[in-house]
Amino acid sequence: MLSELATELRQTLGLLHKRDIQPVARHLGAWVPDNTTQKPIWLGDDCAAIPDGEGYLLLAAEGMWSVLVETEPWFAGWCGVLVNVSDIYAMGGKPIAVVDALWSQSTDQAEQLWQGMQAASKAFNVPIVGGHTHCHSPYKALSVAILGRAQQLITSFNAQPGDTLLLVTDLKGQPHPKYPFWDAATMAEPQTLQAHLNLLPALAESGLCDAGKDISMGGLVGTLLMLLETSGCGAELDLEAIPCPSDLDFKQWLVSFPSYGFLLSVRPDCVEPIQQLFAPHDLVCTAIGQITPGHTLTLKSSAESTSFWDLSQESLTGFSPSHADRKHNPSNL
Amino acid sequence: MLSELATELRQTLGLLHKRDIQPVARHLGAWVPDNTTQKPIWLGDDCAAIPDGEGYLLLAAEGMWSVLVETEPWFAGWCGVLVNVSDIYAMGGKPIAVVDALWSQSTDQAEQLWQGMQAASKAFNVPIVGGHTHCHSPYKALSVAILGRAQQLITSFNAQPGDTLLLVTDLKGQPHPKYPFWDAATMAEPQTLQAHLNLLPALAESGLCDAGKDISMGGLVGTLLMLLETSGCGAELDLEAIPCPSDLDFKQWLVSFPSYGFLLSVRPDCVEPIQQLFAPHDLVCTAIGQITPGHTLTLKSSAESTSFWDLSQESLTGFSPSHADRKHNPSNL
Repeated sequence: MLSELATELRQTLGLLHKRDIQPVARHLGAWVPDNTTQKPIWLGDDCAAIPDGEGYLLLAAEGMWSVLVETEPWFAGWCGVLVNVSDIYAMGGKPIAVVDALWSQSTDQAEQLWQGMQAASKAFNVPIVGGHTHCHSPYKALSVAILGRAQQLITSFNAQPGDTLLLVTDLKGQPHPKYPFWDAATMAEPQTLQAHLNLLPALAESGLCDAGKDISMGGLVGTLLMLLETSGCGAELDLEAIPCPSDLDFKQWLVSFPSYGFLLSVRPDCVEPIQQLFAPHDLVCTAIGQITPGHTLTLKSSAESTSFWDLSQESLTGFSPSHADRKHNPSNL
Repeated sequence: MLSELATELRQTLGLLHKRDIQPVARHLGAWVPDNTTQKPIWLGDDCAAIPDGEGYLLLAAEGMWSVLVETEPWFAGWCGVLVNVSDIYAMGGKPIAVVDALWSQSTDQAEQLWQGMQAASKAFNVPIVGGHTHCHSPYKALSVAILGRAQQLITSFNAQPGDTLLLVTDLKGQPHPKYPFWDAATMAEPQTLQAHLNLLPALAESGLCDAGKDISMGGLVGTLLMLLETSGCGAELDLEAIPCPSDLDFKQWLVSFPSYGFLLSVRPDCVEPIQQLFAPHDLVCTAIGQITPGHTLTLKSSAESTSFWDLSQESLTGFSPSHADRKHNPSNL
């Protein structure tokens, strides 16, 4: 039964699409030097972290899923801002501004995408400061890019064997009727959303956590695989420890975009103080597994366990320490 | 004859498509407050200029024309980086990094877009630091966003009646066989390209010029209209003063994307020192008209002159001082 679940999970669209990144990873390499400081900008994280003074500028872009843009333009516009904002907070940063590129067949179509983006811009208090609009295009498409800033980073490169894996999420939401989205955002109070997101930079600046990742379209499982790949580790994921919204199928939950969801990889002595940080906010902050040596993600449930994915045999995004030796000293190049 | 030319120019696709921005301008308003400094970020320029210390962070995004992405993916990728880099330099800045969003039906299709972006990334010395790739999309699309930094700004808001209008461009290139692009970049030496672009931040920091705009897909005439709209001015454009590549039709030139091209609006006593800055580089830096009071762009040729566009009657992008009172003090809000 666990192996059936594993087979189904492997086949989900979200996971497969992450593999589209592989050729990109080959092109990009593991890092590029910053022109000003010559320090490395590591690639494959939620955002690029560009050294700036004592901290970092964060830069990211997302291209929205064509089906969502076609069928639910308002929600696609909303999500375009949401996913970018989440990428910034996931790294311990705060957003500064977003820009977009929008293609549509008419001004009317563009309008709904715009309304969604505007609504999210208000909800997350991040201004839309520019972009590019085509209203005579053969297709509808939307990309949103974001600039942010962090003092201390939470990155996808720092998970370490022995770390406890924490799931941070919000179970107060509703499933999208058609797509694997858990919506804990559109109906929430903007102040609440912002307060919940601001816990991430507070966490980073506290020094309690330096490793983690935004749960994106690959869901909890896909995101964990990406975290393991970029950190060069394995993990044991304890399925029975994962809290699930009561009205949602567990399998669906494992691959859903949770709208507010982060995986944190933390040293064991930091688990309790981190849980105390999230406790007053009625959010989930629960240990769901452990980072291990090796490159295999193992699923556990009761007495059963199954090897779900061996990243040393099959890569997911291609952004791994081995693919371009990121643990070597880049200042040599 | 001049009026025929004016009629043809008005109908060009480039100009019409700029009007797609109008609903966006209505949504965005004229400015938004920066979250950190509460200073205004003016909208409608080549980039958003976000106050940062003594200078500005610059943020922009471009969505590439679907026809170019479909028919010439390598060149579309190249141009995606080029147009963003130009937006940064046009404002007196230097690029820091770009991110992209890319949709294609297959990895092979994505590859050509990628190769073009990579080539331009090297030519302009700006790293690609992340993005988002979909290789199972029903369409091909490409958006590129850029982050840069400026100490002093050249903006689209500062043209003033009495200013001399300077055209800065490079006539050493070749026309694209199908599209209105003058390619002075793909065959040029990267060092030369970078040296030419670096003249813009040098100019801004010299204090000789604070007003101008990157010549984009609307060509010289469309870009001038946008500059007039955002500055709330009119202009006389002297067609006979405009240098044109010898193997290119003049009308075509007026609406071509020049790959290296900037309109500068400068106080008359700064014309000569600015020309001296560009002179050693075998570039055009020529007076082609004057900024005037009012809101009309007038075309002149020999003894003829014709009113080409009255922005007080018909807006182009909608980003104008009147549309949201940008000359009022934003700190009141």
